[in-house]
Amino acid sequence: MAVSPYQQLEDEFRRLHAFRGALAILRWDAAVMMPSGSADVRGEQLAALETECHALLTSPKVTRLIERAQASADALEDWQVANLREMRRQRDHSLAMPNALISRLAKATARAEVHWAEAKRQRRYTEVAPYLAEVVALTRDRAALLGQHLGLDPYDALLDEFSPGALTAALDPLFKTLARRLPSMVQEGLARQAESPSLPINGRFPVSRQRALCVDAMKALGFPFERGRLDESEHSFTEGITGDLRVTTHFELADPFHGLMAALHETGHALYQLGLPLEWRDQPVGRSRGLALEESQSLLLEMCVVRSRPFLAFLKPMMDRHLGGAGPAWEVDNLYRHLTRVHASPLRIDADELTYLSHVLLRCDLERQLISGKLEAKDLADAWNSLAESRLGVRPQDDAEGCLQDDHWAVGQFAYFPAHALGGLIAMQLWEAIRNEVEDLDGAIARGDFSALNAWLKTNVHGVGARSNVQDLVKDATGQPLSALPALRYLEAKYLEAR
Amino acid sequence: MAVSPYQQLEDEFRRLHAFRGALAILRWDAAVMMPSGSADVRGEQLAALETECHALLTSPKVTRLIERAQASADALEDWQVANLREMRRQRDHSLAMPNALISRLAKATARAEVHWAEAKRQRRYTEVAPYLAEVVALTRDRAALLGQHLGLDPYDALLDEFSPGALTAALDPLFKTLARRLPSMVQEGLARQAESPSLPINGRFPVSRQRALCVDAMKALGFPFERGRLDESEHSFTEGITGDLRVTTHFELADPFHGLMAALHETGHALYQLGLPLEWRDQPVGRSRGLALEESQSLLLEMCVVRSRPFLAFLKPMMDRHLGGAGPAWEVDNLYRHLTRVHASPLRIDADELTYLSHVLLRCDLERQLISGKLEAKDLADAWNSLAESRLGVRPQDDAEGCLQDDHWAVGQFAYFPAHALGGLIAMQLWEAIRNEVEDLDGAIARGDFSALNAWLKTNVHGVGARSNVQDLVKDATGQPLSALPALRYLEAKYLEAR
Repeated sequence: MAVSPYQQLEDEFRRLHAFRGALAILRWDAAVMMPSGSADVRGEQLAALETECHALLTSPKVTRLIERAQASADALEDWQVANLREMRRQRDHSLAMPNALISRLAKATARAEVHWAEAKRQRRYTEVAPYLAEVVALTRDRAALLGQHLGLDPYDALLDEFSPGALTAALDPLFKTLARRLPSMVQEGLARQAESPSLPINGRFPVSRQRALCVDAMKALGFPFERGRLDESEHSFTEGITGDLRVTTHFELADPFHGLMAALHETGHALYQLGLPLEWRDQPVGRSRGLALEESQSLLLEMCVVRSRPFLAFLKPMMDRHLGGAGPAWEVDNLYRHLTRVHASPLRIDADELTYLSHVLLRCDLERQLISGKLEAKDLADAWNSLAESRLGVRPQDDAEGCLQDDHWAVGQFAYFPAHALGGLIAMQLWEAIRNEVEDLDGAIARGDFSALNAWLKTNVHGVGARSNVQDLVKDATGQPLSALPALRYLEAKYLEAR
Repeated sequence: MAVSPYQQLEDEFRRLHAFRGALAILRWDAAVMMPSGSADVRGEQLAALETECHALLTSPKVTRLIERAQASADALEDWQVANLREMRRQRDHSLAMPNALISRLAKATARAEVHWAEAKRQRRYTEVAPYLAEVVALTRDRAALLGQHLGLDPYDALLDEFSPGALTAALDPLFKTLARRLPSMVQEGLARQAESPSLPINGRFPVSRQRALCVDAMKALGFPFERGRLDESEHSFTEGITGDLRVTTHFELADPFHGLMAALHETGHALYQLGLPLEWRDQPVGRSRGLALEESQSLLLEMCVVRSRPFLAFLKPMMDRHLGGAGPAWEVDNLYRHLTRVHASPLRIDADELTYLSHVLLRCDLERQLISGKLEAKDLADAWNSLAESRLGVRPQDDAEGCLQDDHWAVGQFAYFPAHALGGLIAMQLWEAIRNEVEDLDGAIARGDFSALNAWLKTNVHGVGARSNVQDLVKDATGQPLSALPALRYLEAKYLEAR
C-alpha cells in the first residue's frame, strides 16, 4: 500500500521527536550527572544531534512532502490538519535560520556573554554595550528573515517562537493596562503587609529531609515517579518528554521553601507534559504550545495552588513530619504570609508574585524598542534606569542592579520575557475560570485531592497540545478572550484585601 | 580549498562518533538512572540513533568517498591509511546486515529470549530448541553474507566483529592446547588449595563504605573522576567514550569483594578507553580494537594486578580504613587465598580465573559447530552435557545447569565467547611481557605506584587504538606471536605452585 505524503511526514517527525528526546536526556545529564571535565565531548554530541534536527526540518524532502500533503489536505482529519500546520511552522522557523546566520549569532553571543560577565563584575554596562549591539543587529536580521517566512512583522515573528499566535497588537493593550496599575498596587501591597508581618522561619534542614518532602508533595500533586525523576542542579529545570520527565531543584539548608517551591514550579511544567495528548505524543501537534503556555502551568501550580492557605493546610502535616518545625512560625497563617511576602527590589531574582510582572514588563518594553530600532544598545542602561524607577519604585544603584542583572539578551534570547509575562496572565485567567467551574476547589486542595483541578487542566489546556494557538486556547478554556483583568482581580484579592 | 575525499570521510565518521557517544550515554542512563516506566520512549530514541548510524555507514556517499580516498591513498600518512581501512571495515559490517535480515533476526531473537527464560524456569532445553534453531539458521545466513563482504570464511567473519583479524586457523591450535591441559590443572589446583584453606570473611558492609573504598582504589589505579563516574546497576559495565567514562558495579552487603572486584574489572576497561590515541579519538582508528582486546585489559587489571599479594598489600590499609576488618581473616595472605579460590562448578558465573577458560572454551567449540552445521540446535543439550563432564569435571544436573545457563546465543551473540577466551590469553601474555620488562613491578604495585604499568600499557596496547589487528598488536607488544603458553605458565605458577 502506498504511504501518503502526510504519513511520510509523520514518520519524519517521529524521527525528529526521537532525536529531540535524546537531546533532552543529554542536556539533563550534562546539568545533573556529567563529570566536570566532559563538557567538550558532550558539546560535540549535542551539536551533531541539533545539526541533524535542523537538516531534517530544512530538507527538500520535507518541504516537498509538506506541499504534497497540503494539496490533498481535504482527506485529513482535524488533528492531522493541525499537525500539518505545526510541521510547516517548525519547518519555517528552521528555514529562516540559515547556517551562516546561526554561526554569526553563535559567535556574537559567545563574545557578548563573556563581556557581559566582565561588565557585571565591574558593574559598568559600557563594557559590554558594543557586543550587545552586535547581537541586537543580528537579531534584527533574524527577525526580518523570520517575518518574511511567517508573513509577520519582525517582532511578531520572534514572539511566534515562544508564544505561537500571540501578536504585539493583541499583547500591547494588556501589557499597558498592567503597567499602569501595577506600580500603585505594589505600594498598597507593601503597606498592607506591614500591618501583619510574618514570623521568620529559622533552622537548618538537611537536604535528605527536604527531598523527601518534595517527593511526597510531588506525588500528591500527581507527578509519576515511575516515569520521572527529581534531582538536584544549580538552577531548577524540567527536561525530557512525556514518557520520561526529569525535574530538578536546588536545596538551601537554611530555607526549606527555596527547593520545595522550585520543585513544585517544575512539577507544573511536568504535569503539562504529562497531560499532552498521548496519541499525538511524537508529532508536533502533540507537543506543548510553547514557553508562554508552559510557564502558565508552572505559575498556576506554584503561585495559585501551592502558595495558598488551602494547600498549606494540606502540606502542614507533611512538613511537620519531614522538617519537624513547630511553634507559631509554622502555623498555616504565618507560612502563608511568609510565602506571599512582597519585596520592593531592583532585582528580578528577588521578585515575588506581585512584583514579578513589573520586572518582566519592563524588559518587554525595552526589547521591543531594541528590535524595532527605537532604542540603540548604547542607550540601554539609561533607558532601563528611568523605566525601573517608574515601574518598580526603586532606582538601581548601578548597572549591575540595572540592565546587567539578566544575560538573556546577551545570549540572544529575545521574546523570552514576553512569553513569561503572557504566561503569568494566562495562569491567572485560567485560575479564575477554574475557581468558577470546579466546585469546592479550596476544600479539595486542603484535603490533598487534586483530581478535579488536574482533570480541568487536562481537558482545557494540556490535552489540547499544539492544536490551537495561544490566544484561541485561552479563549476556549475560559470562555473569555485573553485579558489583563483576571490578573488584576487575582492580585488585588490576594495582596490588597485579605492578608 | 577543496576538501579531499579522505577529509570528507573523517567528517562523516566524526558525526558517527558523536551519535555513538550519545547512544552510550542513553544506554548508561537506561541502566542506571531512567525511571522504570520509560523503556518504551528510550527504545524509540535508541532505535532512531542506531538507524541513523546504519544509514550513515551504508550511504552511497560514504562508499563513493571510500573508493575515491582509496584511489589516492598514496598521499595519506600511516595512521590515515589505517583509519581508511577501519572505515571500510565498519562499512562492510554494516552493508552485510541488510534491513530485512536485521528485522528477521530481531524478531527471532525476541522470541527465543522469551522462550529461553521459560525453558530455564522449567529447566528443560527442549522448550526453546526450535526457537534457538531459528536464530542459528539466521546467524548462518548472516555469517555467509558477512563472509562474502569481508572475503572470509563464514565463522571467521563473525569472529572479525569482536576480535578483528583473528582467524579460526590461528585460534584453534591455541584453544586445543588449553583444552588439553586445563582439566587436569583444575584438579591439581583444587588439591593444592585443600592444603591451605582460607578463612571466611564475615560481616555486613554498608554500601557507602564499599563505594568509598572503590573510589579510592580506582583513583589510585588512575581512573579520572573528572571525566568519569562510578554508579550502581544490576550488572556491572563500562559505557561512554574516552572523555566521559561511566563505570558501574553492584554491591553485596555481605561480600565486600563482589562490588570491588567488579568495579576494578571495569576500571581496566575504562583505562583502555582513556589510553586510546587522543588525536584520533573521534575516528575509527582511534577506537578500541574490539571486545577481545577490551576484555584482555579488564582481566589483566582484575586478575593479574588486583588479585595478587602485592596489590592486596597496597589495598589492605585502605580496606581497613573503609571496612574496619580486623583479625587473621583480613591478613594479606588470607585475602589472597580468598580472592584466588578455585571452584569446580557447572556454572560459568561461579567460575574463577583458573576454571573460567574451560567454561568459555566449551562454548567456543559448540558455537563453531552450530554455525558450521556440524551440530544442530536440537542436539545442543546432549552435546553440552558430554563436553561439560570432560572439560569441567562435573556433569550438569539438568539443562538449567547446562546449556540454558547463558542466553547469549538466544539473543544472537555469537563469536562473543571466543573473544572472551582470546581476551584471557592476551591478558596473560601481556602480563608475562610486563613482568619481564618493568623493573620491580611487584614493589611498585605494593607501594600503589602504577605509573610504569600504565605507561607500558599505554605505549604497547592502549595507544595503538585500532591501528593493528589483534594478532599483530599482541606480537608487537610482547615480541612473541599469540600463544597459549604464557597463560599455562601463569596459571601453573599462581594455582599449582606457591599458594
